[in-house]
Amino acid sequence: MYTATMDALVSLCKRRGFIYQSSEIYNGLQSVWDYGPLGIELKKNIQAYWWKHMVQFNENIVGLDSSIFMHPKVWQASGHVENFVDIMVEDTVTHERYRFDHLTSEQRSSCVSPKGNPLSKPREFNLMFKTSMGSTTEKGHEIYLRPETAQGIYVNFKNVVQTMRLKLPFGIAQVGKAFRNEIVTKNFIFRTCEFEQLEMQYFVHPNEAGQWYEHWKSARLNYYKGLHIAPDNLNFHIHGADQLAHYAQEACDIEYKFPFGFSELEGIHNRGDYDLKRHSEFSGKDLSYTGEDNEKFFPYIIETSSGLTRCLLMVLCESLDEETLQNGEVRSVLRLPPQIAPYSATVLPLQKKDGLADRAKKIFHELQKEHMVYYDQGGAIGRRYRRQDEIGTPLCITVDYESKENNTVTVRDRDSMQQRRIPIPALLDYVRNNKNKDLS
Amino acid sequence: MYTATMDALVSLCKRRGFIYQSSEIYNGLQSVWDYGPLGIELKKNIQAYWWKHMVQFNENIVGLDSSIFMHPKVWQASGHVENFVDIMVEDTVTHERYRFDHLTSEQRSSCVSPKGNPLSKPREFNLMFKTSMGSTTEKGHEIYLRPETAQGIYVNFKNVVQTMRLKLPFGIAQVGKAFRNEIVTKNFIFRTCEFEQLEMQYFVHPNEAGQWYEHWKSARLNYYKGLHIAPDNLNFHIHGADQLAHYAQEACDIEYKFPFGFSELEGIHNRGDYDLKRHSEFSGKDLSYTGEDNEKFFPYIIETSSGLTRCLLMVLCESLDEETLQNGEVRSVLRLPPQIAPYSATVLPLQKKDGLADRAKKIFHELQKEHMVYYDQGGAIGRRYRRQDEIGTPLCITVDYESKENNTVTVRDRDSMQQRRIPIPALLDYVRNNKNKDLS
Repeated sequence: MYTATMDALVSLCKRRGFIYQSSEIYNGLQSVWDYGPLGIELKKNIQAYWWKHMVQFNENIVGLDSSIFMHPKVWQASGHVENFVDIMVEDTVTHERYRFDHLTSEQRSSCVSPKGNPLSKPREFNLMFKTSMGSTTEKGHEIYLRPETAQGIYVNFKNVVQTMRLKLPFGIAQVGKAFRNEIVTKNFIFRTCEFEQLEMQYFVHPNEAGQWYEHWKSARLNYYKGLHIAPDNLNFHIHGADQLAHYAQEACDIEYKFPFGFSELEGIHNRGDYDLKRHSEFSGKDLSYTGEDNEKFFPYIIETSSGLTRCLLMVLCESLDEETLQNGEVRSVLRLPPQIAPYSATVLPLQKKDGLADRAKKIFHELQKEHMVYYDQGGAIGRRYRRQDEIGTPLCITVDYESKENNTVTVRDRDSMQQRRIPIPALLDYVRNNKNKDLS
Repeated sequence: MYTATMDALVSLCKRRGFIYQSSEIYNGLQSVWDYGPLGIELKKNIQAYWWKHMVQFNENIVGLDSSIFMHPKVWQASGHVENFVDIMVEDTVTHERYRFDHLTSEQRSSCVSPKGNPLSKPREFNLMFKTSMGSTTEKGHEIYLRPETAQGIYVNFKNVVQTMRLKLPFGIAQVGKAFRNEIVTKNFIFRTCEFEQLEMQYFVHPNEAGQWYEHWKSARLNYYKGLHIAPDNLNFHIHGADQLAHYAQEACDIEYKFPFGFSELEGIHNRGDYDLKRHSEFSGKDLSYTGEDNEKFFPYIIETSSGLTRCLLMVLCESLDEETLQNGEVRSVLRLPPQIAPYSATVLPLQKKDGLADRAKKIFHELQKEHMVYYDQGGAIGRRYRRQDEIGTPLCITVDYESKENNTVTVRDRDSMQQRRIPIPALLDYVRNNKNKDLS
């Protein structure tokens, strides 16, 4: 089996318009990335796929979209002001900073930097980005860019329950940006200061928390298998008692086997009643829930929290393939699931002349009403197929001379490279069915 | 004709889960808003509608998704560091701040605040939010939260042209958050510090800039008419020479008649070659374009820039209606275009008993595979219809006793309140066609 290297991926992403370095003409900004025309389509499709599986398919899960700016007290209640810190030390000569836990035990005990100079005393460094809102920096309120989307869900708990008339168990799902002033950013889009989270917080009766935690563990693993991720490339990392965050009762990560090793894709946590209790205390508003027989309690929360761009990186790693054809040629193909591929199909006239381009354009405009499709009329047909293979377009629709005779086209499948003749009036349904064929 | 008041709208938005005040349990944060379960669906649908009309329907417009954090030099090149300022004065007794241009001419000339106290000298106040990236505040890089998404498009111009093999004229479209430290925020979600832009930058030959500017003026006006906005509620405000921004050759706003008066919805600007030239100068990278006959030049840019949440506020204002029925009852109905309504349909069993609920659930699960649908089995059917009217659900599908006999349901139209019997197997197409019926 072919395994993509990170270098091959980064190169493909740049070359074919998936991902560019941010502010590249200004020599870039540390670990910030922009999504190009194909990258944004892939990202949108992954996001829509998640939303569909969370919100559309589940009667008891609703969406939310809270703001990036929140009241600063939220981050006191959440524990982020106090706990969301790295311990840092400074090389007293070069003034370079290091995370204390990244030093070797020898460096730590002798207080010497990797450059051999004396180290400063360790100090705490909060990972939240700060800014100031209001009419002057001196007088403005200090606020934070949210380091996670979850708190926006917790503080809206009461509003959502009341306006949507929800009963336990139910979930609130959210997609949005979060920001962490990470000292160590690495592995392309895997760990970045600005990132997007896909979070679903599931509110349950405390007695049922254990069973719902298990439910979501297996549901989320199945979700990734539904996205065509090989089971061998997925793994649970169960957090031991010494690894648990301050809010967690039990926790695990779903890991994916990235080219740089198994790494976290999604966290699943039983957060207990920590969050609603803390926000009740800090806000003075009662966020408890009244269940059957007037039983009043703080629901437990099962959290599933994954990274949108990590998921994007995963599907790229999983999909990039190279195969050697019978003629010895190497074909590079991105085997993306059709429902998330940037384009659902590409329309190609075999030749520009003889009215083929006009016919192809007409088909293209018809398909465009429902699907993201691409049109390409330049160059040898084989080269055009390869170009679509490389960006993961599942179907190539070719208008040829037979099209003029019997109103059919050839449809080439990206993975098998097999071609079938399809009547033109059946194309719209054909593309739709191909896109949805493996929707679980 | 009924005209919604802002109070009625704000109340509906809170009560029915469209929009909540951010951090409400902490008494809110100035002019920041969260979108509830219905608000996020509406927002997503408006965004998807725009994307479809910009990117999917136009072969020569591609998408982009650039980051919020950008290299600080971007904002020097764009002119924001220098020009994106308000002139502020301070009441020397109360220390309250005012925008100089908001004072009366008398207050300005006598240097007296609205409270009657002496005013400080006017000073410039930049509207960009600042933060610091890196391992310590002292040593970090000062960076800004982007005050507009447009610059992300300009700095990626070369990358997009090369990787997508684009030729003039072509457009790059982007949706994303932007941040402005506005002193005066007002009118609910109309003017807020954190907001979302829908921007499309169209790159053209300088000789054709005038005609493309006119093209996009009329195309964008038609777009809003396609969203069911009454032509009388839309207006062009043409900027005079004294109103033009530093980068603009000519400019206008499309305004909508909000309850608080005609106000800007979208700006359309002929930005000339200002942006690509400035970024070439500041970055040292050549962002010119080579056209036919090897003609080398900086393309002109026609910008269409609108606000996602302003558009959301507009469709709510335009859609909220109250009508008095024959029995004297007042019906509150949100006449949202079906393609952007939060739910495409609601499924209701006439009664829970006699197997009607089971049948309704089955239909619900079938429709759910393709559409955002709602299920409601509680209470009198009339009350349940009203609840759907109020949130703009275009179709109510009711399972009644006849359903058991002939496998049909009644489908009630939100606007006409007329009911038709539809065979259950035809429902999926019926809902889809109703959603797309007025797609231009």
